[in-house]
Amino acid sequence: MQNFDYNIPTKVYFGKGQIEKLGEIKNYASRVLMVYGGGSIKRAGIYDQAVSVLRENGIEFFELSGVDPNPRLETVQLGKKLCLDKGLDGVLAIGGGSSIDCSKAIAAAVKYDGNVWDMTSDWSLMQDALPVFVVSTMAATGSEMDAYAVITNTETNEKKDLGGDPVIPKFSILDPKFTYSVPKFQTAAGAADIISHVFEVYFNRTPKAYLQKRMSEAVMKTVIKYGPIAVNDPKNYEARANLMWASSLAINGLLSNGCYLDWGIHPIEHELSAYFDVTHGAGLAVVMPAWMEHVLQDDTVEQFAEYAVNVWGVEAEGRDQYEVAREGIAKTRDFFVNDLGLPGTLHELNVPEDSLEMMAGNLNGVLTGTFVPMTTEDVLAIYKACY
Amino acid sequence: MQNFDYNIPTKVYFGKGQIEKLGEIKNYASRVLMVYGGGSIKRAGIYDQAVSVLRENGIEFFELSGVDPNPRLETVQLGKKLCLDKGLDGVLAIGGGSSIDCSKAIAAAVKYDGNVWDMTSDWSLMQDALPVFVVSTMAATGSEMDAYAVITNTETNEKKDLGGDPVIPKFSILDPKFTYSVPKFQTAAGAADIISHVFEVYFNRTPKAYLQKRMSEAVMKTVIKYGPIAVNDPKNYEARANLMWASSLAINGLLSNGCYLDWGIHPIEHELSAYFDVTHGAGLAVVMPAWMEHVLQDDTVEQFAEYAVNVWGVEAEGRDQYEVAREGIAKTRDFFVNDLGLPGTLHELNVPEDSLEMMAGNLNGVLTGTFVPMTTEDVLAIYKACY
Repeated sequence: MQNFDYNIPTKVYFGKGQIEKLGEIKNYASRVLMVYGGGSIKRAGIYDQAVSVLRENGIEFFELSGVDPNPRLETVQLGKKLCLDKGLDGVLAIGGGSSIDCSKAIAAAVKYDGNVWDMTSDWSLMQDALPVFVVSTMAATGSEMDAYAVITNTETNEKKDLGGDPVIPKFSILDPKFTYSVPKFQTAAGAADIISHVFEVYFNRTPKAYLQKRMSEAVMKTVIKYGPIAVNDPKNYEARANLMWASSLAINGLLSNGCYLDWGIHPIEHELSAYFDVTHGAGLAVVMPAWMEHVLQDDTVEQFAEYAVNVWGVEAEGRDQYEVAREGIAKTRDFFVNDLGLPGTLHELNVPEDSLEMMAGNLNGVLTGTFVPMTTEDVLAIYKACY
Repeated sequence: MQNFDYNIPTKVYFGKGQIEKLGEIKNYASRVLMVYGGGSIKRAGIYDQAVSVLRENGIEFFELSGVDPNPRLETVQLGKKLCLDKGLDGVLAIGGGSSIDCSKAIAAAVKYDGNVWDMTSDWSLMQDALPVFVVSTMAATGSEMDAYAVITNTETNEKKDLGGDPVIPKFSILDPKFTYSVPKFQTAAGAADIISHVFEVYFNRTPKAYLQKRMSEAVMKTVIKYGPIAVNDPKNYEARANLMWASSLAINGLLSNGCYLDWGIHPIEHELSAYFDVTHGAGLAVVMPAWMEHVLQDDTVEQFAEYAVNVWGVEAEGRDQYEVAREGIAKTRDFFVNDLGLPGTLHELNVPEDSLEMMAGNLNGVLTGTFVPMTTEDVLAIYKACY
């Protein structure tokens, strides 16, 4: 196990009716920017509930709506301008990962004189930020409990992240009922997203981070059990609750603390989202099984076989490790496509075939420190395998 | 899943050499009371390392040593007096659960005009406390990351707890190497203590807190794997590291959040420690299997069978649930006695047989809301079964 610093100061208010806690914003700010996506939070009644609590507590708010699924730098800059013009002292995200990430970037941008995009190359530029508050309406990102944000630069077609303690949310309200209205496809993509966060941690080269391995399996088993239930029975509270808490624990540091990590799967998907606005989780569901097959080799087969046994209950006794591992990978693909109903190929995601080389080329030299280091040729082979 | 508020503000510095972070006390206090037990931290060189970092950072300290294994109210009162007399503004615990709990109680006592024992009956009396810092030297209690302290009143032979946000440690330094010198018996008792914390959470009446169940199993599997390794090979870093982190996660709220709980096993053991100074974890190891057998009944057998299968790999197919459950219980007892080398009976712990009725009588009406509610007769039957 590697050394680590564990620091999750975000308070989580989990469960039915926790929106009442929104009044605690008063302890940090008096005028906030409310950041959200489309009209879904209004249709679901979440907007009205939030506004009512804010008014009861005398908290003023201004709105930035229409945040795009892969939040753009322009939107962040617009939010920054609003905060500065109106003298706002906090940012409230209501939504999924996009609204939360956009809010974090705005919060950091307000306290930075230059272009916030600079921070994606140099995280140390983030020295301060407005306080961030979250009402989560989706189980997927984990952004509600971490220090990171991913934003997209449409000028350069880049999707990059920034991060730092100042943007860790002060509190996050997680009411599973607020995810009842998430459509089937987004619910499924969210489940795949959670699995992907665990994958980036679970498949690693750190010897003997045994506890983290077992905890990772706990989160995966939960998603495997409840993902399909939530897709088919959207108002199943227990399914929504287990998914929602799993999404936070998957990426708040709990599973990764003590492991040496260099995420290898997400960059492969980020290309798809940056160029073709592919839903992040859906892109991941396509890429993951192809990645697993590609990096299955003598020094990784043991981990993939362990995954097959512990997560999928694959029978290992008397069988070749590769056979066991491949059965686990097949079950993973089957889960995404048949149990969650997600697309199984890049073709179905409307990614043009002639873009594969260009996207793979963008990752030249990027994936050298990952679980299995990957060249441009490796990435291209993965794209082709799942096209 | 029940509603819950998650709030773990303690920063954890985990790993080799993290003692350097002790200098961060400066951010909270300038003169601290250093609370520790016997000479073991001096023999292990931990004392010298801590003192050196404190001096480098200009942090003054006064010492309260000799804290007893079940820390006593008198010691807490002595610590309070020292803090007031010397004008101290923080409490640093170096040790295991006893030193940490004693430090928390002192920190709260300093900010309370009355007798700190009052707080064991009314937790709301704790409104403020000196900041608490921890250097943990044992994997057992979990106190390094929670809001609770257990203290013993030798006048009344009562062992009771107090708790509140003010005493949550600001940071805890967990260096697995600092546990190398923990003797075999204490290491084993610590492992049993961690298992007991999971038991109190894992066996509960909350439907469908599925994620918490799987996470609890992850922690138990870790202790089962590494407990015996640490007992037999005290300087095995990975064993010490996995146990140390498991001990914190077992009781920091992670496993219990979302579950309805009313601890039923600990009070049965607390009588043993309060009257006969039994090591807490050793007492628990004796009591737990007897408790499991006693509460095994039609409405709990499913949970005990699930435990047997998921934690111990007991074969369930085609077998009666009671048979499966009993095999899991037998494996638990076998683990404590044969793998960890702990005593298997109250007799071996030198508890006088004629005290059983008196101790059971003390719990009259106390265990009415637990997993399986227990009368005085139930508790007495458990004591007799494991005598």
